[in-house]
Amino acid sequence: MPSLAKGTGMARAFAPAHITGFFEIHFNDDPRRMGSTGCGIVLDHGVETTVVADRSIDHTTVKLNGSIVHEGAIHTVVEMLTDVPVMVDSTADVPIGCGFGASGAGALGAAYALNRALSLDLTAEQLTETAHVAEVKNGSGLGDVMAQSHGGIVIRTRAGAPPFGEIDRIPASDYKVLCIVLGEISTKSVLEDTHAVRQINSAGRVALKALLKAPTIESFMIQSREFAIKTGLVSERALDIIETVGSVGGMASQAMLGDTVFAITTKENESGVQETMEKVGGVLEYRVSSFGPKLV
Amino acid sequence: MPSLAKGTGMARAFAPAHITGFFEIHFNDDPRRMGSTGCGIVLDHGVETTVVADRSIDHTTVKLNGSIVHEGAIHTVVEMLTDVPVMVDSTADVPIGCGFGASGAGALGAAYALNRALSLDLTAEQLTETAHVAEVKNGSGLGDVMAQSHGGIVIRTRAGAPPFGEIDRIPASDYKVLCIVLGEISTKSVLEDTHAVRQINSAGRVALKALLKAPTIESFMIQSREFAIKTGLVSERALDIIETVGSVGGMASQAMLGDTVFAITTKENESGVQETMEKVGGVLEYRVSSFGPKLV
Repeated sequence: MPSLAKGTGMARAFAPAHITGFFEIHFNDDPRRMGSTGCGIVLDHGVETTVVADRSIDHTTVKLNGSIVHEGAIHTVVEMLTDVPVMVDSTADVPIGCGFGASGAGALGAAYALNRALSLDLTAEQLTETAHVAEVKNGSGLGDVMAQSHGGIVIRTRAGAPPFGEIDRIPASDYKVLCIVLGEISTKSVLEDTHAVRQINSAGRVALKALLKAPTIESFMIQSREFAIKTGLVSERALDIIETVGSVGGMASQAMLGDTVFAITTKENESGVQETMEKVGGVLEYRVSSFGPKLV
Repeated sequence: MPSLAKGTGMARAFAPAHITGFFEIHFNDDPRRMGSTGCGIVLDHGVETTVVADRSIDHTTVKLNGSIVHEGAIHTVVEMLTDVPVMVDSTADVPIGCGFGASGAGALGAAYALNRALSLDLTAEQLTETAHVAEVKNGSGLGDVMAQSHGGIVIRTRAGAPPFGEIDRIPASDYKVLCIVLGEISTKSVLEDTHAVRQINSAGRVALKALLKAPTIESFMIQSREFAIKTGLVSERALDIIETVGSVGGMASQAMLGDTVFAITTKENESGVQETMEKVGGVLEYRVSSFGPKLV
């Protein structure tokens, strides 16, 4: 507990990545009430963000993986929380723009680090609200932050930031999660396509209803795959891999919104699924984690 | 994801320990609405519970650290969730009856393991409700389960099980938590003493209000110490240790309800605090953890 003058300091926070399996968009003019319902898994990897505030800094700089970025959710988080110029440096150990919620993890980690560096004395729920609102305002995410703030296999039963948004969880083990990244999908461009949104919302609503009848990891994976196919968001290549994983007894679907296949494995099918996926391409290995954000 | 017939199976779950710093009791005839507000820390140690259900078992047996127990929250959890006779075996790696919420961790872990072993398909919130109600009915706990189901440094802002109970969190690092156990306090006997309850509720309300004005770990420790002293729950020996830790720049208070001193240390004061505490007695070392319960 370093004791620091208000307005100066340094802090570092980690926020976990999150793969959404399916979702429904809930529009609202109030960004705290706008968001998505659905279900996804929080990973043991994510984004680490360092914030530095001292008198020598005269304007805010945000870096992501070493490069300066001029707009986005982290900038919005800084504007929402302080007038003091700060240096924010985020490093992601998951791919960006590929369905891992890296943007939300950056925003949430930045909020936690700012809170500590500047002694803002905000609670976890207030920081979650800030990051959620920043994501919605930037069109970069709708539900990741709510899941990332809790960890586990998170069912988002009501959309929005706390106290509007509500979650539940599927009781989970730290299952292994294997991913193959095929490419990016822009969250913003999908959200601007009204036909796509209609299909997403119809399929997302059906999936959540079915999941809540049997809230298990198996059911989550089945509903996610149905959602990917029904919405047409799945690429041909991703569908091929999903079916190949299924043929060796594994469960795979697509990370929303990214052209990324994710598979959840058990001890029983792990080696078979991993071998099969490695024949297709580079496999990224993670685990389901019930860790939320934390100062590091 | 082992596929098992309904009513047979084996599963193991871990639920974390929880140290309450201060609390206020909220009485209600409905055990889902009865509980406590307050604040406490979830630890990286806790209780591991194994559940076995198969046709050869003709009556339910509950073991705690190797000994058969004939009543308590775990029995109530079993009765609430199933008619099938099961073997439940809990092992705590924290002391029992000393303010570590071992009873709540056992009840919550049993609920998670039963859910998996018997394929009950309940969500995390439903299992949390079950364990909370079992604790309240047995008079063995009021708020531990709500905190244990989330992890971190948990502020219980509204009492009860979900959706009545509500929590927030102090954004946290994985601070080291050092404990000295002096003895047991019976939760049940304190709750039955109306004078003690009046003092607890008055001090607990003041502490929560003050904490919410500055929700930091430092403020949590200060409010916890005030609460321990004002309620008279602190033993002379515990107060001595708390003051000694304070004299070397550390922060300590009493684990509620137990005759246990806990100290939270930072990198800066860790060695000094630990050395000082080791002169007094056997020191147990834990960390604050944002892990909730999980299948293992």
